[in-house]
Amino acid sequence: MKINEIEPGMSESYSQTITDSDIKAFSGVSGDKNPIHMDDEYAEKSRFKKRIAHGLMSASYFSSIFGTKLPGPGCVYVSQTLNFVRPVYIGDTVRVTVTVTAVDLERRRVIFETVCRVKNKSVITGIAEIYIPPEV
Amino acid sequence: MKINEIEPGMSESYSQTITDSDIKAFSGVSGDKNPIHMDDEYAEKSRFKKRIAHGLMSASYFSSIFGTKLPGPGCVYVSQTLNFVRPVYIGDTVRVTVTVTAVDLERRRVIFETVCRVKNKSVITGIAEIYIPPEV
Amino acid sequence: MKINEIEPGMSESYSQTITDSDIKAFSGVSGDKNPIHMDDEYAEKSRFKKRIAHGLMSASYFSSIFGTKLPGPGCVYVSQTLNFVRPVYIGDTVRVTVTVTAVDLERRRVIFETVCRVKNKSVITGIAEIYIPPEV
Amino acid sequence: MKINEIEPGMSESYSQTITDSDIKAFSGVSGDKNPIHMDDEYAEKSRFKKRIAHGLMSASYFSSIFGTKLPGPGCVYVSQTLNFVRPVYIGDTVRVTVTVTAVDLERRRVIFETVCRVKNKSVITGIAEIYIPPEV
Repeated sequence: MKINEIEPGMSESYSQTITDSDIKAFSGVSGDKNPIHMDDEYAEKSRFKKRIAHGLMSASYFSSIFGTKLPGPGCVYVSQTLNFVRPVYIGDTVRVTVTVTAVDLERRRVIFETVCRVKNKSVITGIAEIYIPPEV
Repeated sequence: MKINEIEPGMSESYSQTITDSDIKAFSGVSGDKNPIHMDDEYAEKSRFKKRIAHGLMSASYFSSIFGTKLPGPGCVYVSQTLNFVRPVYIGDTVRVTVTVTAVDLERRRVIFETVCRVKNKSVITGIAEIYIPPEV
Repeated sequence: MKINEIEPGMSESYSQTITDSDIKAFSGVSGDKNPIHMDDEYAEKSRFKKRIAHGLMSASYFSSIFGTKLPGPGCVYVSQTLNFVRPVYIGDTVRVTVTVTAVDLERRRVIFETVCRVKNKSVITGIAEIYIPPEV
Repeated sequence: MKINEIEPGMSESYSQTITDSDIKAFSGVSGDKNPIHMDDEYAEKSRFKKRIAHGLMSASYFSSIFGTKLPGPGCVYVSQTLNFVRPVYIGDTVRVTVTVTAVDLERRRVIFETVCRVKNKSVITGIAEIYIPPEV
């Protein structure tokens, strides 16, 4: 999408039910084999009582929306802040939403509010800055 | 690692050469099929001239160090900031390093400087906050 | 298999129980993250009531039989028609069967009826045409 | 997308450079380990001279466009015809395009022309029929 087509308030979402398969795939890619993600017995004794998802896995769905839908192909990540405010459990359906809050036409940057929710409660919040090259 | 064993200055690193397989695996997990990651012809016409890696993939190696080495098993992500300052290309060897900058014993939080470098140049910088539950 | 060893009526089958892992793997390869495949809450509100498998995933098992068993190594896909007549759910065991219906020795083509069944009910039907090069 | 927003001529594309990683991932999902996809030495002696991609892998990108972009989430595959008219080699950049040719509002079906091209030459052609449930 060209930067002059983007306006504050524009928004896109993606949702996925988090399963053991997702956690195994993400742990394979990242190498993060923390037992709170991988080990039922360990997780049972933790404060979470059951295995939780990797925070950066849910965050990666922000990247997917940016790269494929809004702003879409060709855009580039400048920065992302991530606050992990609640755990995501296996079986939770996460819904990630990115919403344009500002457009800087001169520097070709778009600022997004990024939120990941489970049952309408925020689990990850943050701000992303995306650069849209002139050739897009 | 128990929180009272952790001191400012402690550091851990991990290195990996980024290949097409890594990019395909990460695009599958995240859904981010931005052509700057997937399409040689598209990338050639872009400012990058060749395909670049997903920023959050390199960032996921921070998560791996936290969850397996420092602080290690049982720790939980509180927040992460990420500045993507240079692109990572296929064939680049990334070296991610996390270094303790502060320990808050009361709130059981550890603050880390997180850096990802290619040939000693920073490609991603940021700050992470990690919580270590009492049961660890 | 050489083309002169192939006769109408010859048949091969393959069965697999479809799990969440299969769906996640196929969505990663294809990029098809339609929520009817990925999101329990979305699927519950749909006419299907639960997540369904990607049609082309079950169809890919036809390709597997062709490439490994009948006609086997070296054969090449010319065409495939696919009618998706019933949904496939997670937990369903699909049984795909290909049956030779005609052999064209001159053009070195074999025509197959291709069927995918769940509990003996057709879920995908179609016709495939396969070319067997002289060097096979 | 609601069916009444869809009109003949609407079109979406996706492109990807096909690599060995893609072929290995698709052969893992499908089970199609035909040596024309997997074995350099076998492929060298074949008419293709080098390994070719699975036809249904390129076809799966049609599914991805349908499920995520046009018509998008919630739509269901009714049928797909596939003619594999030229081989796709490792290193080729495929560009798949789906174009609406007809909309049947009463039966809630959309007909698409589906084409996969390499360097502007068709490698796969076909027709897809997609159903859009009223709840979408």
